[in-house]
Amino acid sequence: MQDCCTGYGRTIGAVSLRRRINAPFRTGCSRRSWPLRRKPTLTEIEAPLERFGAWAATTHDFGAEARDGAVDAIIDTIDCMLAGANDPVVSGLRAAFADEIGASGPAPVVGGGLAAPGRAALINGTSAHALDFDDNFRPARAHVSAVLVPALLATAASRPVSGRALVDAYIVGLEAQAFVGRGVNNAHNLAGWHPTGTVAGIGAAAGVSRLMGLDAGTLAAAMANAVSAAAGVKAQFGTAMKPVHAGLAARNAVEAAQLAAAGIHGNPAILDHALGFRALYGGGDGPGWDAATIGAPLAILGDGLVPKLYPCCGSTHYALDMVFALRQQHGFAADDVASVQVELGRANHANLPYGAPQDAMQARFSMPYCIALALLQDHLGLEDFTPAAIARPEVRALLPLTTMVINTAEGMPHRVTLTLRSGAVLHAERSEVRGSLIEPFSEAEKQRKFMSCLAWAGVTPTTASALHATLRNIDAAGDMTALFAAIFDH
Amino acid sequence: MQDCCTGYGRTIGAVSLRRRINAPFRTGCSRRSWPLRRKPTLTEIEAPLERFGAWAATTHDFGAEARDGAVDAIIDTIDCMLAGANDPVVSGLRAAFADEIGASGPAPVVGGGLAAPGRAALINGTSAHALDFDDNFRPARAHVSAVLVPALLATAASRPVSGRALVDAYIVGLEAQAFVGRGVNNAHNLAGWHPTGTVAGIGAAAGVSRLMGLDAGTLAAAMANAVSAAAGVKAQFGTAMKPVHAGLAARNAVEAAQLAAAGIHGNPAILDHALGFRALYGGGDGPGWDAATIGAPLAILGDGLVPKLYPCCGSTHYALDMVFALRQQHGFAADDVASVQVELGRANHANLPYGAPQDAMQARFSMPYCIALALLQDHLGLEDFTPAAIARPEVRALLPLTTMVINTAEGMPHRVTLTLRSGAVLHAERSEVRGSLIEPFSEAEKQRKFMSCLAWAGVTPTTASALHATLRNIDAAGDMTALFAAIFDH
Repeated sequence: MQDCCTGYGRTIGAVSLRRRINAPFRTGCSRRSWPLRRKPTLTEIEAPLERFGAWAATTHDFGAEARDGAVDAIIDTIDCMLAGANDPVVSGLRAAFADEIGASGPAPVVGGGLAAPGRAALINGTSAHALDFDDNFRPARAHVSAVLVPALLATAASRPVSGRALVDAYIVGLEAQAFVGRGVNNAHNLAGWHPTGTVAGIGAAAGVSRLMGLDAGTLAAAMANAVSAAAGVKAQFGTAMKPVHAGLAARNAVEAAQLAAAGIHGNPAILDHALGFRALYGGGDGPGWDAATIGAPLAILGDGLVPKLYPCCGSTHYALDMVFALRQQHGFAADDVASVQVELGRANHANLPYGAPQDAMQARFSMPYCIALALLQDHLGLEDFTPAAIARPEVRALLPLTTMVINTAEGMPHRVTLTLRSGAVLHAERSEVRGSLIEPFSEAEKQRKFMSCLAWAGVTPTTASALHATLRNIDAAGDMTALFAAIFDH
Repeated sequence: MQDCCTGYGRTIGAVSLRRRINAPFRTGCSRRSWPLRRKPTLTEIEAPLERFGAWAATTHDFGAEARDGAVDAIIDTIDCMLAGANDPVVSGLRAAFADEIGASGPAPVVGGGLAAPGRAALINGTSAHALDFDDNFRPARAHVSAVLVPALLATAASRPVSGRALVDAYIVGLEAQAFVGRGVNNAHNLAGWHPTGTVAGIGAAAGVSRLMGLDAGTLAAAMANAVSAAAGVKAQFGTAMKPVHAGLAARNAVEAAQLAAAGIHGNPAILDHALGFRALYGGGDGPGWDAATIGAPLAILGDGLVPKLYPCCGSTHYALDMVFALRQQHGFAADDVASVQVELGRANHANLPYGAPQDAMQARFSMPYCIALALLQDHLGLEDFTPAAIARPEVRALLPLTTMVINTAEGMPHRVTLTLRSGAVLHAERSEVRGSLIEPFSEAEKQRKFMSCLAWAGVTPTTASALHATLRNIDAAGDMTALFAAIFDH
């Protein structure tokens, strides 16, 4: 027999005072103690979500720089969402739920029609992530805007909401995604979870709650509710379910807030409970929330989003940036190359299991495929991820050139070693991708991406330009109806 | 730097040949090997879900005993679902999604109205588990019928389905819940997952797929899809989100099959993939599926369901059976009792964190509360889990009498040591609860439970008796419309 004070669950770092209220099963120290110990109430010591709720439900002056960053991210997400609408996974979702898309229902769905908010969030969120062209966000180790923006749009559709409120909710939702993510990462990500399906959805529930005007406690409850639907494993990478994770997370965010508003409240101590999020989702080695700050600085300013120039897994982007730069500097052609070795982190490596991709989805998660393209052409675009593009013999001939090597050192740069047939060996290393705060895209690059996505969606350049102008003014928009029409009807 | 063949993910028992196709990141043994190694295709070696799909999509003669067991379980679930319809959590769900419940849509919802299949499954599944009166199932360590039956009913509502097909689908879905559960449990359960939200939903996707007539590969894909929404942590026990886990799992089952039928297919190797279900959901110590049998014997015959006589956590039932038996044998009254010590397993202990419950939901997960009732009265009924019942001073006075002790020995019996004020010490132990295959309920006990649940739902005895007779004949019913009317309209 084992005493009741030992052996339960995993050991999770230091046991704080707050932990004691979260771990009733681990703290009894005599066989009779548990039923007699008074459990401190949650009002005595704040759980992380309660602390976050208190910040998130309060009015803040986020400032012009943060608001501009949010508008950029919203625009970047909407162009990805529109470009994804014709992808087979989105067509599949529309077919699966055809009876739920119609002429009534508050929320517009990409591809046409209206649906319930949760259903619209599921389809639009999947569409935003379908081409893997949407942004990344370091603290969450996730695609966050593809979850947050569709969730906010679906929520805004059923209530009077200003553009300013939408931007506020984006900043709050992103801060929440950072807050949740920092407490569990990078252990959570390395374990094999897809944080887009887990962390991003829990955080987005805060953004949705803010847009609904929920109070601090209800906002915290919405995030707690969202933990009960947090899911997504990396074994789905390369299948159609990978982008669906973003949609499921967006739906989770919307519905978790709807449940909280209706009085259904999960455990606000769930993040660091012994049977809660950090303990169960492979984040036992994560830092937790005891020292977590909120909004100081805002995550959108301190971390920033990492939007993409190439529609493939972000783990390939460091190497792509380097190969493009080496080619520009040394002027070699694909035929001159004997081998390309890419050194990258463990999680990045795990994201890229496809050596010889069989379809467009696998190609987005194939380092050899992406490097082959970078040896042949000056840009990777949406047109490079179609069945016909993937079958090109000149690309497939280059696949065996590339190998990957894992480096587990914390904070190590990505490295490329490119050997030419001449015997020359070229080296490069990078700790950042283009598009991050350190090397942000130019306005021209952003505009070019927007126009290429809208062209992919079949929208004329004139209409696309008009939509871009409308979206740039979201923060001043009073009328979301016009905004929805501009986004969804074209 | 670390070689690419080491250090990825956790170590998971023996590395089988099949494992090699599932773990491309762990098997490269030289730094150049990965892109050059041919990855075996899935058609060469069957993944567990493909093996299961091949069985589940095939016609079998399940036999009368299995069909009777399935009908019993369906009836027991429907009475719990109807009794739960007025619970605050179900009212909350109906309020949250009020705009989605109306006069159209194929699937009936408890409390009235029609909705999309996924939405109906969410609300009805939650209702079936709201009172914690629904069955348990050992291989899954979960409430399985509360997930499976609502998912099947929601699916049957939109297509012509015979009662016989419904019973077949129940048997297949339960077998799938057993198959998934056996591969990860008891490690999964002990880690703190709520298998009702995880294992039960993945398995139920097989039952739904069978009812939809999907082929073997599509059925396996549906189960793989369901892994992407498998969630639920025990930190939600005692909150309204606990029963919602059953609803979310039922919804997950329905929608995972809808997605698969529409061509969206997750990774069929996901169960034992290095970044898949067993590896990430705390089941690394589970046995896996290499030696798993299917249908030999059928889980419904070999394991059987464990329905409940008392509407509270199944982890209290062993002790309740023993206290009732000790009282019957020794004739003491509550006033005669000095202390009650209950010895139970670690997972059972974890399910019961409430020493002094504050509401009905906590009371269902409180050993002291349930034991106090058993000292005072001869049965625990739905009427014992209301705010007024919980506040009774004569019950609360008895709460300090009960303590719990964990025993971690595998297969140990539950034990009660009851000390009387006279100094007499009474012992009992039990390895089974009443209601299991070893001590099944009598027909009179089943009928009494059905009638008490229907009375709780506000249904007259006459109507309830008629519904019971209709349900007993499900297996012969050709017309599900009449069956739905009998269940949902009264």
